[in-house]
Amino acid sequence: MLEALKAEVYQANLELPDRGLIKYTWGNVSAFDSESQLFVIKPSGVDYDEMKPEDMVVCNLDCEVVEGDLRPSSDMPTHAVLYKKFGDIGSVVHTHSPWATTWAQSGLAVPAMGTTHADTFYGDIPCARFLTTEEINKNYEYETGNVIVETFDEKGINPQEVPAVLLHGHAPFIWGESCDKAVMNAVVLEEICKMNIFTRQLNPFAETLPKAILDKHFERKHGKNAYYGQQ
Amino acid sequence: MLEALKAEVYQANLELPDRGLIKYTWGNVSAFDSESQLFVIKPSGVDYDEMKPEDMVVCNLDCEVVEGDLRPSSDMPTHAVLYKKFGDIGSVVHTHSPWATTWAQSGLAVPAMGTTHADTFYGDIPCARFLTTEEINKNYEYETGNVIVETFDEKGINPQEVPAVLLHGHAPFIWGESCDKAVMNAVVLEEICKMNIFTRQLNPFAETLPKAILDKHFERKHGKNAYYGQQ
Amino acid sequence: MLEALKAEVYQANLELPDRGLIKYTWGNVSAFDSESQLFVIKPSGVDYDEMKPEDMVVCNLDCEVVEGDLRPSSDMPTHAVLYKKFGDIGSVVHTHSPWATTWAQSGLAVPAMGTTHADTFYGDIPCARFLTTEEINKNYEYETGNVIVETFDEKGINPQEVPAVLLHGHAPFIWGESCDKAVMNAVVLEEICKMNIFTRQLNPFAETLPKAILDKHFERKHGKNAYYGQQ
Amino acid sequence: MLEALKAEVYQANLELPDRGLIKYTWGNVSAFDSESQLFVIKPSGVDYDEMKPEDMVVCNLDCEVVEGDLRPSSDMPTHAVLYKKFGDIGSVVHTHSPWATTWAQSGLAVPAMGTTHADTFYGDIPCARFLTTEEINKNYEYETGNVIVETFDEKGINPQEVPAVLLHGHAPFIWGESCDKAVMNAVVLEEICKMNIFTRQLNPFAETLPKAILDKHFERKHGKNAYYGQQ
Repeated sequence: MLEALKAEVYQANLELPDRGLIKYTWGNVSAFDSESQLFVIKPSGVDYDEMKPEDMVVCNLDCEVVEGDLRPSSDMPTHAVLYKKFGDIGSVVHTHSPWATTWAQSGLAVPAMGTTHADTFYGDIPCARFLTTEEINKNYEYETGNVIVETFDEKGINPQEVPAVLLHGHAPFIWGESCDKAVMNAVVLEEICKMNIFTRQLNPFAETLPKAILDKHFERKHGKNAYYGQQ
Repeated sequence: MLEALKAEVYQANLELPDRGLIKYTWGNVSAFDSESQLFVIKPSGVDYDEMKPEDMVVCNLDCEVVEGDLRPSSDMPTHAVLYKKFGDIGSVVHTHSPWATTWAQSGLAVPAMGTTHADTFYGDIPCARFLTTEEINKNYEYETGNVIVETFDEKGINPQEVPAVLLHGHAPFIWGESCDKAVMNAVVLEEICKMNIFTRQLNPFAETLPKAILDKHFERKHGKNAYYGQQ
Repeated sequence: MLEALKAEVYQANLELPDRGLIKYTWGNVSAFDSESQLFVIKPSGVDYDEMKPEDMVVCNLDCEVVEGDLRPSSDMPTHAVLYKKFGDIGSVVHTHSPWATTWAQSGLAVPAMGTTHADTFYGDIPCARFLTTEEINKNYEYETGNVIVETFDEKGINPQEVPAVLLHGHAPFIWGESCDKAVMNAVVLEEICKMNIFTRQLNPFAETLPKAILDKHFERKHGKNAYYGQQ
Repeated sequence: MLEALKAEVYQANLELPDRGLIKYTWGNVSAFDSESQLFVIKPSGVDYDEMKPEDMVVCNLDCEVVEGDLRPSSDMPTHAVLYKKFGDIGSVVHTHSPWATTWAQSGLAVPAMGTTHADTFYGDIPCARFLTTEEINKNYEYETGNVIVETFDEKGINPQEVPAVLLHGHAPFIWGESCDKAVMNAVVLEEICKMNIFTRQLNPFAETLPKAILDKHFERKHGKNAYYGQQ
């Protein structure tokens, strides 16, 4: 089942090391099929050289494996929560890409310092709090999803407009309408995390992007007035 | 029309990711034909793997498409203004290369700290101001060009001697007599932006290059007394 | 003798430059055969392009060459001490990878700032003290091994739980159950050393990982309750 | 004449971009033939893709071209002075490698912070002063050589023991007994310049390497008691 989506998810997972976002198997990509309400995700800890499209695992929103001989990524429940709660998301990506992980370790939100940010993210990328010991011991990966959702709720951020989050002491989760888009958003996040560290060092008083430019760049690529690209 | 120039512009655009200046389609190169007063530019948001030389778009200095089935780069009007106002420029490049973009985000000019800088840029590389909300809402990309020209005018900088600018909160624009030269200038800019951040960190009191060395190195490669290279 | 292990050690040594951990011949990998109580190590200073599996040198725990036409790595005695004292170790790796070496030069332990660390290292990665002049002049490489063992003893760290050490003013040693695992641990160390430098710069008050998350991530991949991967 | 040496110099020049030490043609390697007292150097500003071994230029110690259709590197007189004054040097390398250039821009000597340094450089790598305006206007490249020699003389540094120098506001010159060795020394310099910047940032109070370890590591690889490698 979902063979085309499996092929897409497989390819997107291979893209993570190719784009310098992960080493070894330190990441995972999934994609959601809205018709069947199922999602396809990478198996846990399988060497990318040996992994095949048919190894992808099919799961439902209750975190159950529906099809597949291998265990799904241990982060599978986090993906499930995001598909369930964030509505119209086609793909979720998790990496330990170094610059985004550095921000996650610092516990700080990534401010919008430039148009590279504004082209993809409409405002700050939040950093979710540490999980409590109770949450960790209950169902760690599932609670991780809940803490992400809580973060967006409390801060009133629209996950369609800011398709990424940092987990304090951990690493980023990123999403998008398709695998390609979600991986691209992960690349953008990594790039702006790198640039923003050094922007702050170069000029500790550097201003964040004026609202009018933030609006302009986000709207150039998103929504009904978008005019970037071929349509 | 302008088939040779289209091939050149096509190649120069492919060079941007190869030289680590951009990811995905986050940049564009154009080239100017002084005889016809037209310029050739990359189409907007087309995947580099699928892009062909004949996809390049021909525009005039009034920002009109003269030939081409695809939309030109959304930054096209900025290119038009630079060709119109800066006189003898053969090619314009725009990238979001990370170190130059970091300086652009910091809002600071790039000082001449070494001969790597002086070999290409005769003095500070300026950072243009944020556009006003009015300018953003009028014709963003066209006004971006105007702000660049204003910067060079106000500071009395000769764009032939300093072939690059940073846009505050955005990224660099770079130019040169040919596509090859403009791309090379973009590489030099990226390299000195990287080195200068760390020069400052290593020694906050590091002196800028003495005027006599700046002159020497710029003149070694430019003007009638140049003696670098084979002629 | 030990032909299969020689092939493994040979491959692992080639992996060091491929993974960006070393330049030229600035590193070495060995592997231990518990049955014969012998270990196989790279020869000293041989160009990787010319090195062959049969060039690997077989040594015993008394630092004697048992088989091989070439001199073993000059760091051989350090490997011998680690196999002798740390019990169940299958492979030892030495690199001068830049970020880990930067921490070694700084003389500081690497704190657990995130789950990338916790997935592999259960707590701080210690930095061993400088050798005394006497130790240096006695048997430098052997005493280096002793100082590593002393460090783990004094701090009460289990080398199975923290499979790496920094040598002050020198570089890291890393180990693992197999060559593959030891090289992977060297990659993790390099990555966290890079991220932790910038985490501190971004937020000097960044908290280390809460104990409950450290436990969770280490136990996800190690011990009887591990549930990462396919078994 | 000197065809074998030309081939060696040609190869060493190609190695500079391959090892990430230069971009475009921003560097040069030469090699000295002690019998004829001539040296072979790269031509000025020739694209590496088009350059051939027979394009290498032969010069004498009076900075005259003895053979070759192309102009020699504009830095040729600096090379000549080093061969003339530093005695037993087989090859000279000039690069604008980013981390070494960053130190050169900062005007600071590179301290010996670790054994990666001590394996190649016996103590601080000095930074030569800015040239005076008079020196710049007289014979810039020749005077650059003189200032390097002056630096080693005044500080009492043996150029055989510290085979590199930084030029303030410019970049490094590196040398060695052969092209291979000089390029390798350039790689070591680049690596330690990178690591030392971050060592200082990580721990501003980081100690330089104790004298006994500096001695040990330098002597492990140099002089009559060397025991690294296969002889």
